[in-house]
Amino acid sequence: MAKGFDDLISKVNSCSTKTVSVAVAQDSAVLEAVKEAKEKNIANAILVGDEDKIREIAAEMNMDLSGFEIIDEKYNFQAALKAVSLVHEGKADMYMKGLIDTKSFLKSVLDKEVGLRNNRPLSHVCVFEVEGIDRLLFLSDVAFMTYPTLEDKASIIENTVEVCHACGITNPKVAPLAAVEVVNPKMPVTVEAAELTKMNEEGKITGCIVDGPLSMDLAIDPEAAVHKGTTDRKIAGDADVLIFPDIHAGNITYKTLVHTAHVKNGNIITGTKAPVILTSRSDDSQTKINSIAIASVMAEAMKNN
Amino acid sequence: MAKGFDDLISKVNSCSTKTVSVAVAQDSAVLEAVKEAKEKNIANAILVGDEDKIREIAAEMNMDLSGFEIIDEKYNFQAALKAVSLVHEGKADMYMKGLIDTKSFLKSVLDKEVGLRNNRPLSHVCVFEVEGIDRLLFLSDVAFMTYPTLEDKASIIENTVEVCHACGITNPKVAPLAAVEVVNPKMPVTVEAAELTKMNEEGKITGCIVDGPLSMDLAIDPEAAVHKGTTDRKIAGDADVLIFPDIHAGNITYKTLVHTAHVKNGNIITGTKAPVILTSRSDDSQTKINSIAIASVMAEAMKNN
Repeated sequence: MAKGFDDLISKVNSCSTKTVSVAVAQDSAVLEAVKEAKEKNIANAILVGDEDKIREIAAEMNMDLSGFEIIDEKYNFQAALKAVSLVHEGKADMYMKGLIDTKSFLKSVLDKEVGLRNNRPLSHVCVFEVEGIDRLLFLSDVAFMTYPTLEDKASIIENTVEVCHACGITNPKVAPLAAVEVVNPKMPVTVEAAELTKMNEEGKITGCIVDGPLSMDLAIDPEAAVHKGTTDRKIAGDADVLIFPDIHAGNITYKTLVHTAHVKNGNIITGTKAPVILTSRSDDSQTKINSIAIASVMAEAMKNN
Repeated sequence: MAKGFDDLISKVNSCSTKTVSVAVAQDSAVLEAVKEAKEKNIANAILVGDEDKIREIAAEMNMDLSGFEIIDEKYNFQAALKAVSLVHEGKADMYMKGLIDTKSFLKSVLDKEVGLRNNRPLSHVCVFEVEGIDRLLFLSDVAFMTYPTLEDKASIIENTVEVCHACGITNPKVAPLAAVEVVNPKMPVTVEAAELTKMNEEGKITGCIVDGPLSMDLAIDPEAAVHKGTTDRKIAGDADVLIFPDIHAGNITYKTLVHTAHVKNGNIITGTKAPVILTSRSDDSQTKINSIAIASVMAEAMKNN
């Protein structure tokens, strides 16, 4: 069971090396990440994009391209379609965004012919290692689904639990968060959290233990659970998965963690036939590598299922 | 200008000592806080409640009660009414919750005869000193208003800006937060944030600079503003005040800060005729003292207005 990114990378190193297909690879931050991922035996990469520009950028950063397959395609959306088709056809294991806008990238992910649709809603999972917390935390959705319905939240949980399983967390504890830990009919979020808990008890959401509504302290801090007398609940400060009311709560919390706490993190898009890596330009190189590592364990788990 | 709680406490020490009136004072954590507040010259206290129990608890914790006025009132709500009336009559400067449920305590705050109503909406302000951030952050509303309307948010800003002014921050920067930094009609929170900005530009919200919507990183981290090219905005990682979409986003962020980052914090209720201290049982003694310090600077500012 991976308790941090070092564990996760060890897990990746113990499996057959996966290959990431990069859409529009002429980007120094992305090339930096795939270079380091290769050096650390986390993943190989196929670089799809403008070959001249890829070689130019690689030369500027003293990157040796001899170990990488390069597919020349100057038009961005065509490059994305080519890159995603490699994953569709099984020639690569995961799909990564390069220098292309998010909308076009997602259009390629959802392409009916060569994309990675799976008849499930897509969601974003952000994985955090936080100083002082002895396990990985899986946050969703902090970047993709804006105002998830109850059904969307059930899908978000399923998508996220799959990532937990891939990381070796066999029965993750899932906390649908709210401002309070009790149901209040005036706060629909708490009613939905209780519904998700019931769906889990009734076997409609499986592979995990759902307990909500929970406030953030009672979800992540065992001492808070002792202090507030909630240690008899299924989750008592030991949640693995944090489900947010909406994108505002999720995104603000995500950025609070990144910009105030001591953390490592990475993130992927799930609900697709293969893991999709959609890092932001503001993510540092380490975050991109962590994201490739998460995608690799997911790809390994999907291969074995 | 107070940049941290040490500054804030120095500011308190330089003013005439204020007096806090405690409702139902027979509580060890509350007595611990008023004892330390007195020792550090932050505030005096009048203890209203069951005198026998107050003396018993004080004896157990070796607390010398000789410097404190005690008013014996065994019935909790009567004790609260007595305690709040002392503030109403100007015999004390601020009002603090002891061993009484929040609902009854707030009922005493809002009492028409002896309470602290001010014909304004009440809101909660949480003040944070965060490691790595060179100024105090004022968060609202993370505990009191559940789903504030646009008008409520304008009041929340006014209430919070008053606290900033009391702390010596003369023209605070106020960031209405969202998941994104641009207006998106599909996200009503972003539309409201832009409305608040406009109200500030039109002189309907004064004493501060409002700029929203802003994501959390662009509100608190100047490097993020450089990286994302938003340094030409009125706020570029240097916000003092963070306004949350709703109580879920606010409360989850607040507890994330407390339980994952290195912080000091304190909080008060504002919008009343005198500052109200409504700390939670889960707040540690330092948080309670910080809260008394914030209430003291507010009481000083209100005295001078």
